[in-house]
Amino acid sequence: MNWDSKFAARTAHMKRSTVREILKLTARPEVISFAGGLPAPELFPVDRIREATDTVLAERGREALQYSTTEGMRELREWIARRMSGDHLQIHPDNILIVSGSQQALDLVARVLIDEGDRIVVENPTYVGMLQCWRPYNLNFSAIPTDADGMQVEEIPAVLRSAPHKLMYSIPTFQNPMGITLSHERRLRLAEILVEHGIPFYEDDPYSALRYSGDDLPNILTCEAQARGSKTLDGSVIYAGTFSKTLTPGLRVGWVAAAAPLIDKLVQAKQAQDLHTGTLTQLITYEMVRDGVFLDQHIQTLRATYRRRRDLMLRMLEENFPEEVTWTKPDGGLFLMITLPESMDASELLKVATTRDVAFVPGDGFYTGEDGHNTFRLNYSNAREDRIEEGIRRLGVVLKEAMAQRA
Amino acid sequence: MNWDSKFAARTAHMKRSTVREILKLTARPEVISFAGGLPAPELFPVDRIREATDTVLAERGREALQYSTTEGMRELREWIARRMSGDHLQIHPDNILIVSGSQQALDLVARVLIDEGDRIVVENPTYVGMLQCWRPYNLNFSAIPTDADGMQVEEIPAVLRSAPHKLMYSIPTFQNPMGITLSHERRLRLAEILVEHGIPFYEDDPYSALRYSGDDLPNILTCEAQARGSKTLDGSVIYAGTFSKTLTPGLRVGWVAAAAPLIDKLVQAKQAQDLHTGTLTQLITYEMVRDGVFLDQHIQTLRATYRRRRDLMLRMLEENFPEEVTWTKPDGGLFLMITLPESMDASELLKVATTRDVAFVPGDGFYTGEDGHNTFRLNYSNAREDRIEEGIRRLGVVLKEAMAQRA
Repeated sequence: MNWDSKFAARTAHMKRSTVREILKLTARPEVISFAGGLPAPELFPVDRIREATDTVLAERGREALQYSTTEGMRELREWIARRMSGDHLQIHPDNILIVSGSQQALDLVARVLIDEGDRIVVENPTYVGMLQCWRPYNLNFSAIPTDADGMQVEEIPAVLRSAPHKLMYSIPTFQNPMGITLSHERRLRLAEILVEHGIPFYEDDPYSALRYSGDDLPNILTCEAQARGSKTLDGSVIYAGTFSKTLTPGLRVGWVAAAAPLIDKLVQAKQAQDLHTGTLTQLITYEMVRDGVFLDQHIQTLRATYRRRRDLMLRMLEENFPEEVTWTKPDGGLFLMITLPESMDASELLKVATTRDVAFVPGDGFYTGEDGHNTFRLNYSNAREDRIEEGIRRLGVVLKEAMAQRA
Repeated sequence: MNWDSKFAARTAHMKRSTVREILKLTARPEVISFAGGLPAPELFPVDRIREATDTVLAERGREALQYSTTEGMRELREWIARRMSGDHLQIHPDNILIVSGSQQALDLVARVLIDEGDRIVVENPTYVGMLQCWRPYNLNFSAIPTDADGMQVEEIPAVLRSAPHKLMYSIPTFQNPMGITLSHERRLRLAEILVEHGIPFYEDDPYSALRYSGDDLPNILTCEAQARGSKTLDGSVIYAGTFSKTLTPGLRVGWVAAAAPLIDKLVQAKQAQDLHTGTLTQLITYEMVRDGVFLDQHIQTLRATYRRRRDLMLRMLEENFPEEVTWTKPDGGLFLMITLPESMDASELLKVATTRDVAFVPGDGFYTGEDGHNTFRLNYSNAREDRIEEGIRRLGVVLKEAMAQRA
């Protein structure tokens, strides 16, 4: 059977994620890979998860293994609503939908909000998983440039005035791929713009718990409520969170926080898509976070280790990379981004790097257009310190050789 | 913010599942509900799952909690491929994609194959979760009538000749909602039709392990290969299986078996949708089935209990329901379907029934058109024997009263 003739038109915009394909190529243990976005597995709270699972199966085993509601486990939604609430914003469990990892939130929001050919505002570069998920809708991306303080929000009003846009998308905190963070001043200005234009804003926030320097900033969800002079969640911000980076990714538990009418529509879309997120993994997650103590302690452990790795990588870059090469200095998250001289190509460099058993992700895939050929992303959370040292040394040699050939 | 003005056009075809909404209404413990499609929770192998989880977390905890490949755990795919292979069909792990419950397979296949407005052949009535998932594509359903031997396959060629169709969908074995099974003779004829027309056929098969009477029948996947004179999986059948009915639904692990080019495209769609199915739950599932013994023993336990409940429900129907009412006699699965006299309405009946603390699902939601108002679906797997006796007695009284009023 010739399947190519059967595929739907939208499949022309589908492709496998470059990142995930590179992960397969670099699975050999001798390769030092900075390519993935993987948390450090040696920090996974395996014993705590065993205990939690034992408790859940002993105390409520039948419930944990049965079908459950599409909205998600009530107690977990209550816990998330409490945790996200503050002086300036009160969140109700009806504002929370549990999803099968925050990637699913991207898919559900697209199903519910995006029509073919819509215009979407994004920062550039942006999360490749969003591009992969939303491109089959044949979208027009309006790319807002970024600098060390995040998206240049002053550029947004002119873009919104130029044509109707359906949605904005951003990772404001410790962005993927760059590691940069939207400044407080820009957050407040962004919130004003959102209120003025009434445009839905997708705040993708997988990393904000992982801060290693600088002060915590309010999320856009809260800033927008303040700009509206409201303390309830009925504005235009759609917040996506996850336990993948703070507990473990293998459980696949994330959430959306948004206005109740949108949550209601997302529930309908999710019901058709996978009925509900795994009951057992939701109950395990709740059992682990419910005491309000373990999660915060564990986040401190993660921060201490990742801070050390970030600092080490930054120092190794300083010592080993040629002068013409620059990079971002993230205050948290998992990534930083390298910029090579304009004439260089990161994909070509990767070919050489993999022959020296070191890997990264070329940056062009993160850009909405044709930019970024001279950029690449490095992950510093997954590799142990000795591997970071050795890997950046190897990359430094590859880079210097490439630049010498060029000269 | 007025979200109604922001929703995508396709959301006009989205609605919450009637079944799942009825489940909420009937959650009071005093209600005897035959509405859900729930397995019997008292049969869940809770202790075995605890053991399996302990083993997985002790032996490969870090792997079980990390991100994993979109295709799914290699050993589980190998196990499924072996289990589904036979003398007439050899299945390779590359033919298998693990999904987050078989509902997700419906969604992924739609993303990859269905364009807006396509024509789809379905049996009528059919699975409401498929209708809910596929209706947002604004489809034209060509409904094939059914009888005690399943879909009347002789009607299919004329339908296929009348207009181009993208896909056929059926639950050939112990169908939801009717409980009927496509006869062997019709399977062979269907396979010929598929080969002749080269049309993709979605074989949804959640129930076939749960047989209580009659002989096992080959699946359509195998029949189609035989009709092609091939022993490899490169035909037009897309098979969806699940562990929800044989192990437990709360793990959310299912699979698709299909030709490799289609699997490849489904992987792309899944990667964008939820990255991958939960690593921990896949490893638990594999740990439980790998010995090749436990699963089959457990299926025998399920069959024994569900057979008793089916037999009891059929006997109670015979004793308590008025003569003008008829029902299907399933050889397996979870459901049977009741047909009332044409002038009666099952939704009206449900209103009365819930006041007597007994519930079912009205049949109209399972039909592609306006039919089925005088039908309803009963589940016999979930309720214990005394509840089946009492519930059908109550329903009998409600029915007799309604028919007396009508006279």
